[in-house]
Amino acid sequence: MQQIGVGLIGTGYMGKCHALAWNSVKAVFGSGPRPRLVHLGEVTAELALQKAEEFGFERATGDWREVVADPEVEVVSVTTPNQFHAEMAVAALEAGKHVWCEKPMAVSFADAERMRAAARASGRTAVLGYNYIQNPAIRHIEALLRQGAIGEVNHVRLEMDEDFMADPDVLFYWKSEASSGYGALDDFGVHPLSLITTLLGPVERVMANMSKPYPDRPLRDGGRRTVETYDIASVLIELAGGASGVIALSRTAWGRKGRIAVQIFGARGTIVYDQERLNEVQLYSTGDAPAEQGFRTILTGGLHPPYDRFVPAPGHGLGFNDLKIIECHELLKAIEGKPARIIDFEAGLEIERTVHAMARSHHEGRWVTVASQ
Amino acid sequence: MQQIGVGLIGTGYMGKCHALAWNSVKAVFGSGPRPRLVHLGEVTAELALQKAEEFGFERATGDWREVVADPEVEVVSVTTPNQFHAEMAVAALEAGKHVWCEKPMAVSFADAERMRAAARASGRTAVLGYNYIQNPAIRHIEALLRQGAIGEVNHVRLEMDEDFMADPDVLFYWKSEASSGYGALDDFGVHPLSLITTLLGPVERVMANMSKPYPDRPLRDGGRRTVETYDIASVLIELAGGASGVIALSRTAWGRKGRIAVQIFGARGTIVYDQERLNEVQLYSTGDAPAEQGFRTILTGGLHPPYDRFVPAPGHGLGFNDLKIIECHELLKAIEGKPARIIDFEAGLEIERTVHAMARSHHEGRWVTVASQ
Amino acid sequence: MQQIGVGLIGTGYMGKCHALAWNSVKAVFGSGPRPRLVHLGEVTAELALQKAEEFGFERATGDWREVVADPEVEVVSVTTPNQFHAEMAVAALEAGKHVWCEKPMAVSFADAERMRAAARASGRTAVLGYNYIQNPAIRHIEALLRQGAIGEVNHVRLEMDEDFMADPDVLFYWKSEASSGYGALDDFGVHPLSLITTLLGPVERVMANMSKPYPDRPLRDGGRRTVETYDIASVLIELAGGASGVIALSRTAWGRKGRIAVQIFGARGTIVYDQERLNEVQLYSTGDAPAEQGFRTILTGGLHPPYDRFVPAPGHGLGFNDLKIIECHELLKAIEGKPARIIDFEAGLEIERTVHAMARSHHEGRWVTVASQ
Amino acid sequence: MQQIGVGLIGTGYMGKCHALAWNSVKAVFGSGPRPRLVHLGEVTAELALQKAEEFGFERATGDWREVVADPEVEVVSVTTPNQFHAEMAVAALEAGKHVWCEKPMAVSFADAERMRAAARASGRTAVLGYNYIQNPAIRHIEALLRQGAIGEVNHVRLEMDEDFMADPDVLFYWKSEASSGYGALDDFGVHPLSLITTLLGPVERVMANMSKPYPDRPLRDGGRRTVETYDIASVLIELAGGASGVIALSRTAWGRKGRIAVQIFGARGTIVYDQERLNEVQLYSTGDAPAEQGFRTILTGGLHPPYDRFVPAPGHGLGFNDLKIIECHELLKAIEGKPARIIDFEAGLEIERTVHAMARSHHEGRWVTVASQ
Repeated sequence: MQQIGVGLIGTGYMGKCHALAWNSVKAVFGSGPRPRLVHLGEVTAELALQKAEEFGFERATGDWREVVADPEVEVVSVTTPNQFHAEMAVAALEAGKHVWCEKPMAVSFADAERMRAAARASGRTAVLGYNYIQNPAIRHIEALLRQGAIGEVNHVRLEMDEDFMADPDVLFYWKSEASSGYGALDDFGVHPLSLITTLLGPVERVMANMSKPYPDRPLRDGGRRTVETYDIASVLIELAGGASGVIALSRTAWGRKGRIAVQIFGARGTIVYDQERLNEVQLYSTGDAPAEQGFRTILTGGLHPPYDRFVPAPGHGLGFNDLKIIECHELLKAIEGKPARIIDFEAGLEIERTVHAMARSHHEGRWVTVASQ
Repeated sequence: MQQIGVGLIGTGYMGKCHALAWNSVKAVFGSGPRPRLVHLGEVTAELALQKAEEFGFERATGDWREVVADPEVEVVSVTTPNQFHAEMAVAALEAGKHVWCEKPMAVSFADAERMRAAARASGRTAVLGYNYIQNPAIRHIEALLRQGAIGEVNHVRLEMDEDFMADPDVLFYWKSEASSGYGALDDFGVHPLSLITTLLGPVERVMANMSKPYPDRPLRDGGRRTVETYDIASVLIELAGGASGVIALSRTAWGRKGRIAVQIFGARGTIVYDQERLNEVQLYSTGDAPAEQGFRTILTGGLHPPYDRFVPAPGHGLGFNDLKIIECHELLKAIEGKPARIIDFEAGLEIERTVHAMARSHHEGRWVTVASQ
Repeated sequence: MQQIGVGLIGTGYMGKCHALAWNSVKAVFGSGPRPRLVHLGEVTAELALQKAEEFGFERATGDWREVVADPEVEVVSVTTPNQFHAEMAVAALEAGKHVWCEKPMAVSFADAERMRAAARASGRTAVLGYNYIQNPAIRHIEALLRQGAIGEVNHVRLEMDEDFMADPDVLFYWKSEASSGYGALDDFGVHPLSLITTLLGPVERVMANMSKPYPDRPLRDGGRRTVETYDIASVLIELAGGASGVIALSRTAWGRKGRIAVQIFGARGTIVYDQERLNEVQLYSTGDAPAEQGFRTILTGGLHPPYDRFVPAPGHGLGFNDLKIIECHELLKAIEGKPARIIDFEAGLEIERTVHAMARSHHEGRWVTVASQ
Repeated sequence: MQQIGVGLIGTGYMGKCHALAWNSVKAVFGSGPRPRLVHLGEVTAELALQKAEEFGFERATGDWREVVADPEVEVVSVTTPNQFHAEMAVAALEAGKHVWCEKPMAVSFADAERMRAAARASGRTAVLGYNYIQNPAIRHIEALLRQGAIGEVNHVRLEMDEDFMADPDVLFYWKSEASSGYGALDDFGVHPLSLITTLLGPVERVMANMSKPYPDRPLRDGGRRTVETYDIASVLIELAGGASGVIALSRTAWGRKGRIAVQIFGARGTIVYDQERLNEVQLYSTGDAPAEQGFRTILTGGLHPPYDRFVPAPGHGLGFNDLKIIECHELLKAIEGKPARIIDFEAGLEIERTVHAMARSHHEGRWVTVASQ
């Protein structure tokens, strides 16, 4: 395969991120097919045209179904708001396209199940946009865990915090509507869960508490409206592997801009990571001489693949968008039938299942076993 | 009052810490009575004599009751293992002495209640050794909260971690016996609770999960014994003031030596603190210009009393023992009937109540209201 | 201008970095001409062909002069080893092409002067690859300085350290040969100088000390050879604006991977930056309330252009390669005759002049005025 | 020796620090003589009396000569302003007392030589107050260097910065008068030199640049006066052992409160330290597995003597005053004729010699060999 035809639906935050990845992946990795940017869909033909020109797509449309139907499109990036994921991804899969869909899968568990079913039926590659697992730092953490660098893991803590809802004067918008989901739990919680799934395996049971820092928010035209979602969630977890843990989520955490703080405690050491310093891994190892034990700040570099595909010099730093390029490369490998580091619709559904179990545990005030969801 | 007669029972970790405080408090603060180190009690007369010579006490005894009975002793430091606190503190109070007792109050809630009753009956000053609240950094955090620097608090997270039990090869000893308490929950949990109580007010309800990283530990003479306490505890909390939160505790967290990590989120900012860097406060304020907002690392100094009593130059750093000197000074103020920053047996009992409610919530798998304990 | 024809000479570390920038710049910025990747030159036709396929160039050649001569090429990236810069850049300029040449300009000052002359004569845009000045963090530092956020600057310290030569067992290679230049001084020193020039203006006089941590290095085939360059350089400086300062450079600094540590002290505050955490700016301002003064860690985001062209969410992080994309965008603006943030051959020559003055000060053991060079 | 009679002259910043050390040293270390606080001298009898009461001294005087003459005084702490050190220290030595004198020795080199001569003639112990070398962290750095943990040292950088003169509106006072010395160079420079001397051996040659951030300062009663000292100094150095280095000093560095930043680069690793985090050592070792190399943050604890004399638990933190207690203990060991970690008047004179060589190099604009001073 020399080329692969790409369709893109949506050109917002994640749409642009996909477009950048499609533009760069071949030059970065030097191998695999060259993406041919064929067809871009947006809500209006005008916007589609403008973005196609910016992103380098050949064709543009105001009707996303034309992207899906385009015979030259082989893989479709779905980057629209969450409520549209199911419809578009299913349509693309049914049209025989591979799908690269942003997370979370869908608002309802039923929709997520429908997407999984479509993926199974199609035999196509269906991948979710869990970019953080692609970070060479996270990959190295996985390698450390696999090689037993910190012994058996017995406790984990994950925090994911941003502050885009922290201002009580942020206007009421769709993220505060119940129709958008639970709040921080699904908006954010899926990311820590993607890391737990990748690094530590499945979650066994959960006990969540969700809270609303602000009971209502101002409306654009005056007045206030009651907030229906929970901007904060805290969850006790137990992993199938035996470790206990905590997941803490907030989109009202002033000062946190892209924090995903991970602490993994084992019988022989500890690993710490923070997404706001995405090129650093902290490792404490009891293998060090006792008087010299301490957390090491490891700067990622050539010894932490695929960092070297971006820069030969260590410690020079990858950025957020680079993680999407790696994800794109893994997607292409999966399409080619090669082993790939992805969260596909199968694995993604398990993340959704865990999120919904958490929500139930909150409402019922008791532990919920994930498998029972 | 020019002088005050001091008795000390116990000369281990905390006993020495008290002795150092008694030796220094007058020179540091320049005001208040001069402690006269009268009588020191230890388990043997020999050890008592040796420690009296080291710490500068006039008399020594192998029978702690002699310390309590000594007419020249006006205040007694109780720094023995937790199971002896109740008996000694009650005896001292009944003998008309003021009491400075190390935390936690007692192993059982009934004992703690008995201590509170004795304090009430005696009319004496009875103070617990919650030294972390004395840190000028913590005092400044309190001042910031009082003046509304971060607006109304809506979420908190506290972690307390050390690693002295982290090695699975640590021998089974009394800390792994059920008779010593629950484990991390009471051994550690009382410290974060002293901070919450001081900074944010009472806890309303709790939901805990405790776990054992190692099911058994080696015995000195071979063989292994089942661990009866929980080295790890994670707790969902809700404060009476409305904020939600998490407390996470571990004494098996490799690499953490004296971590008490505090995150307090408000409507207009965030405060972050870590005891391992006890001279630093992190403040994020939305009062800063938007493009210059960020966490500030404030080094404590002369503007953060009573730092200036130790060093006139800012950022030169107080140490762990200095916090005990401040606590000693507050104790003396309380004895003199002045307003003082202390956690007395009344406040201490509420901390104990909260801990026991947490333990119950773990065993019953549901939320427990603290007041119901 | 809808498109611009691009030629690339060299495909190593910086060649790939240019190629990635050319591939992404239009999608990132959405404005300006779309680069058309026309012609790629490498030392062999084979390698050129392979890299053209990877990077997306239409034509490939083993003779760089064909790139320069190609009528469809309008701008040429020169990313070959330093000793070839002058010949290639001059040839490209004489052929009427714009030039984007990696730093440093040339090994000898005479060559650098020749390049500057060719740029002047051609009337074309000639830009050097000083990517670090493009970082939104550095731009924000410049904005802060311009608006007087820290008052008049009176002292600066810059360190640039890596460790790729730190191992005494690194084989002798061209970087240890005198023909490659002075060592850390020109290999590294130009970067801090690009920051000083951009942020603080010209250097008035200098006093350098260069040193060799290892007198000789092993040869591949056995034996050892005397090192001719200085892996370490330390320089006292005085700026035309009146501030004093220090520049410290090392390519044998174990553990430093991409450190460019900047400290700028002013009458009302301090700014601190470290390239290893390239998305963070530290600001200490006396405008803050006295008891809350501290270094703020500002995470770059949408308020620090052009960060927002990459990611809408703050604190998610740009990477090293992103800085080159910004540089590419500035280059295109310059070519279009718009105001642009670049270091052109005029400004670049002043950096070279300063470096050579430093070398002279070392050899003569006295202060050297830069203008006298 | 069961007791040792102590005299104290001066009760300011350092006087109190000495008093605290004398009060605590026996209780902390448990060994050595018990200090008996005999006689305290201040500028007035009244102040002396007040401070004697606070610090626990038996007698007080407004005439420091009475302290020196007191037959019950065996060791005299000299903590007065620098210009009085020589007279008092010499008088005390001539009276047969041991002397603990604050740094720097004296304003003039001649005075410092006179002090050294008096110490030699007296045969008494004469120690300078270089407390930073007493930090368990610094001791551990020394141990690491001795055991070759980072191989042969080839480069060092030391910065010492505070901001008590950073405000241009700080009134003109004696620190801006030439009679007080050079400025940052002697006021501060002696501390980094005490560390270099202890850790790395003597300085061979120096090349300094001193600068004045503010040409004049306001007078209390209006008007302004020209500043005669240099608040900033930067120095190139070469050590006798062969390493090159930089010392940078400022007392106008906004935001720096007690920074002494040390970077020591060797053939196999790097050690980094910052006094503002005085309980942490950073170590980068090439002995670590390549993919896990990084700077370790080692928190001092029981493995770093004499930390354990203060707190048994690691990472709980010593403070600035604790370093003086260690120094006091070393002084007592020296008095008892035991090996001790001190900078005596011999070693102190070499530090003074180096400082004066630096000043000369500034004025002469050339390198100065220290031994030639």
